[in-house]
Amino acid sequence: MSQTVTRFEVHDIRFPTSEQLDGSDAMNPDPDYSAAYVVLRTDGNERADGPGGADGPDGGTGPEGHGFCFTIGRGNEVMAAAISTLRPYLLGRPVPRTAAALGELYRELTHDSQLRWLGPEKGVMHMAAGAVVNAAWDLAAKLAGEPVWRFLAGMTPEELVSLVDFRHLTDALTPDEALALLRAAEPGRAERTERLLAEGYPAYTTSPGWLGYDDDTLVRLARQAVADGFTQIKLKVGGDLRDDVRRLSLAREAVGPDIRVAVDANQRWDVAEAVEWMRALAPYDPYWIEEPTSPDDVLGHAAVRAGQPVKVATGEHIANRVVFKQLLQAGATDFVQIDATRVAGVNENLAVLLLAAKYGVPVCPHAGGVGLCELVQHLAMFDYVAVSGTWEDRVVEYVDHLHEHFADPAVIVSGRYAAPHAPGFSARMLPASLADHRYPQGPVWRARHTPEETGR
Amino acid sequence: MSQTVTRFEVHDIRFPTSEQLDGSDAMNPDPDYSAAYVVLRTDGNERADGPGGADGPDGGTGPEGHGFCFTIGRGNEVMAAAISTLRPYLLGRPVPRTAAALGELYRELTHDSQLRWLGPEKGVMHMAAGAVVNAAWDLAAKLAGEPVWRFLAGMTPEELVSLVDFRHLTDALTPDEALALLRAAEPGRAERTERLLAEGYPAYTTSPGWLGYDDDTLVRLARQAVADGFTQIKLKVGGDLRDDVRRLSLAREAVGPDIRVAVDANQRWDVAEAVEWMRALAPYDPYWIEEPTSPDDVLGHAAVRAGQPVKVATGEHIANRVVFKQLLQAGATDFVQIDATRVAGVNENLAVLLLAAKYGVPVCPHAGGVGLCELVQHLAMFDYVAVSGTWEDRVVEYVDHLHEHFADPAVIVSGRYAAPHAPGFSARMLPASLADHRYPQGPVWRARHTPEETGR
Repeated sequence: MSQTVTRFEVHDIRFPTSEQLDGSDAMNPDPDYSAAYVVLRTDGNERADGPGGADGPDGGTGPEGHGFCFTIGRGNEVMAAAISTLRPYLLGRPVPRTAAALGELYRELTHDSQLRWLGPEKGVMHMAAGAVVNAAWDLAAKLAGEPVWRFLAGMTPEELVSLVDFRHLTDALTPDEALALLRAAEPGRAERTERLLAEGYPAYTTSPGWLGYDDDTLVRLARQAVADGFTQIKLKVGGDLRDDVRRLSLAREAVGPDIRVAVDANQRWDVAEAVEWMRALAPYDPYWIEEPTSPDDVLGHAAVRAGQPVKVATGEHIANRVVFKQLLQAGATDFVQIDATRVAGVNENLAVLLLAAKYGVPVCPHAGGVGLCELVQHLAMFDYVAVSGTWEDRVVEYVDHLHEHFADPAVIVSGRYAAPHAPGFSARMLPASLADHRYPQGPVWRARHTPEETGR
Repeated sequence: MSQTVTRFEVHDIRFPTSEQLDGSDAMNPDPDYSAAYVVLRTDGNERADGPGGADGPDGGTGPEGHGFCFTIGRGNEVMAAAISTLRPYLLGRPVPRTAAALGELYRELTHDSQLRWLGPEKGVMHMAAGAVVNAAWDLAAKLAGEPVWRFLAGMTPEELVSLVDFRHLTDALTPDEALALLRAAEPGRAERTERLLAEGYPAYTTSPGWLGYDDDTLVRLARQAVADGFTQIKLKVGGDLRDDVRRLSLAREAVGPDIRVAVDANQRWDVAEAVEWMRALAPYDPYWIEEPTSPDDVLGHAAVRAGQPVKVATGEHIANRVVFKQLLQAGATDFVQIDATRVAGVNENLAVLLLAAKYGVPVCPHAGGVGLCELVQHLAMFDYVAVSGTWEDRVVEYVDHLHEHFADPAVIVSGRYAAPHAPGFSARMLPASLADHRYPQGPVWRARHTPEETGR
């Protein structure tokens, strides 16, 4: 049955998280977690929304695709404007349901030459393409009656390869190499799917470690994380070395020697500073140092990795597949941290998963924010089933924030993500949450201040 | 005298250049050259606009700062929205006039943690910061009664160093090293200023080489360029190898063996393709190959440089100083092509000039588009006077498009840019040009189509 996209709605949704210092780190002291949110409405009577039920009070007559970019407040309206430029690629056109159609849509959105100039393939315009691509995946998976991870894992190697844009990648990964990787993982798909459904996917939690939390909160939440079954936690560092030494030793004492404690500098350092700082923290056995320096600095990450003993992790702010490619070529990172909404959606993240598999580097997705856990769990589970074929040394970040706003929230059981069953990408925010947090006109914001006061 | 910014205006200005295929290349077949344009109006009676006269019919009572980003059409409204987010940093605040104030403004605009998330330091949000930074420089130079190149060249080495953000740069260039470079160039400033005023700065022209031009146009314009005194021209390549061989040999025949003929692939190739293509073009003696692959691909550029005999040039799409740093660290390019509006304005371009000087790589700025020649000439001239101290192997691009819309257009004399005399950054577009080309409501666009038709 053919369906058409009949509406393309864009919403500026913001949560006043800066009031609690949730999410505070060395570079981002006061984030208001936000989403530039897109809804694709369709015609037709076919409903495949699964347990999530109807897609909102003003839904169309057919299923909907929901997608978004995560931002931290100011400028979310710029993201919304960027998403709106992509309306003509969807509105009035057939719903993309197949790998071929989803591959074509992704290429159209990222190859529009006039819009590409605004990146190219980076920043606001590229993330906007990602929001729309992800909304299309949400819709296609709903129509297929499957969660995105299973929808992807049900595609043939040839279909998966057709989703990727290999431009500027072939010096590291050719379509034939990608096909061979996917074919090699094909025989184990069914078995791993069963195991995933039974056991869930390994997670770690950053909830204890925000820089704005006091020591007591840190220790209490670190102990709680272990009690909840997590085997890895993460602390934000990079503000003050003595504070970091104290916090890391407190955390280590709280969780014992067998729990991994990763640290995250959120791009704060130059290369020499990162090396020096991490040499000072190394005695407390941090598991990895995340974003030690600029996300654009491939050579800098390689130098940090070579200059101190702690493993390096990076990727949440890496702009596109070309930078990921170089990180791997240069041996600059021990872990690849994909983000669901920083690059151009499922398709580009598939390219990164394939690159990481080629180089044998574990993918440990970034999450948190608004809805990032919900989205990225699908990509990690698909990676396990159909690409890398392993969860050894893999772990998806989990932060216990804002899940209550989602119709199909991520579920953690004993420190692991339970595999989603509902059709789609787990992307749909509840209608009341959307209505309450619209910026600046929603009641949550009207109660706080006037638009003029929030302009800065 | 202290002055305040009393208005912060943002305009979406577009020119229907796609109708003539001016500006067409292998990645950008149909650009509508555009500017997301910002005007800072001020109070006070001090006028220092120089020969350009009053700053428009609805000017404030004080001098104005004009700045813009260059785009190629669709999405220019997204740039305008991004510029608007920066209004609170200027509106109602004192006009930044000194190096200290201009350094502080640049850091405020690029370090706003919520807005930085939208890059970080790349794409739409970073270019928007550049437009505002450049408008502030236009204003400050007007108040100083000098063109920007002389305003900059009149600053002490210490002042110039204070303009730069060294974060993520110090593994390649420290403030002390930058200071030493600038001090070494200080004694020759006066002599080079005189020489620049007398002789102008070397230019090359891309006017003959657009991919959409037929062979006769190419040959005619190539001959014209030589007759006009240019010693270097540039052709767009990367569409079809046989076409490129034919066009390059025609151009070579038209200009003779002593004129440099550069070629520009506009990011079209993967690494192996670039190497192969340039080996095929090498017999026709191209002077450089520009943007052979993704602008994000530092390692790819290094591989292209190593794999074929033609010199490599890149930079117009490089997102920020951190990527330029790596290009130089990796020995990935023979020429650094700064762009006046891609990075965060004068301050970040100063960082790139200093990096290039440290590594001894010539800076050959990108220009063309809308107003890019007008802006970037100031940076090249400042580089000559106060940073690199030479124009050996340096040349600024010139394209003969759209200069008639500027109050203080770039002037070419015998293939060289004449040094601007008017105070400011030569950034001011004529009021009638702004009014005619406002999108979508200006008469140029109303005459063409409805906004609905232009959304895609």
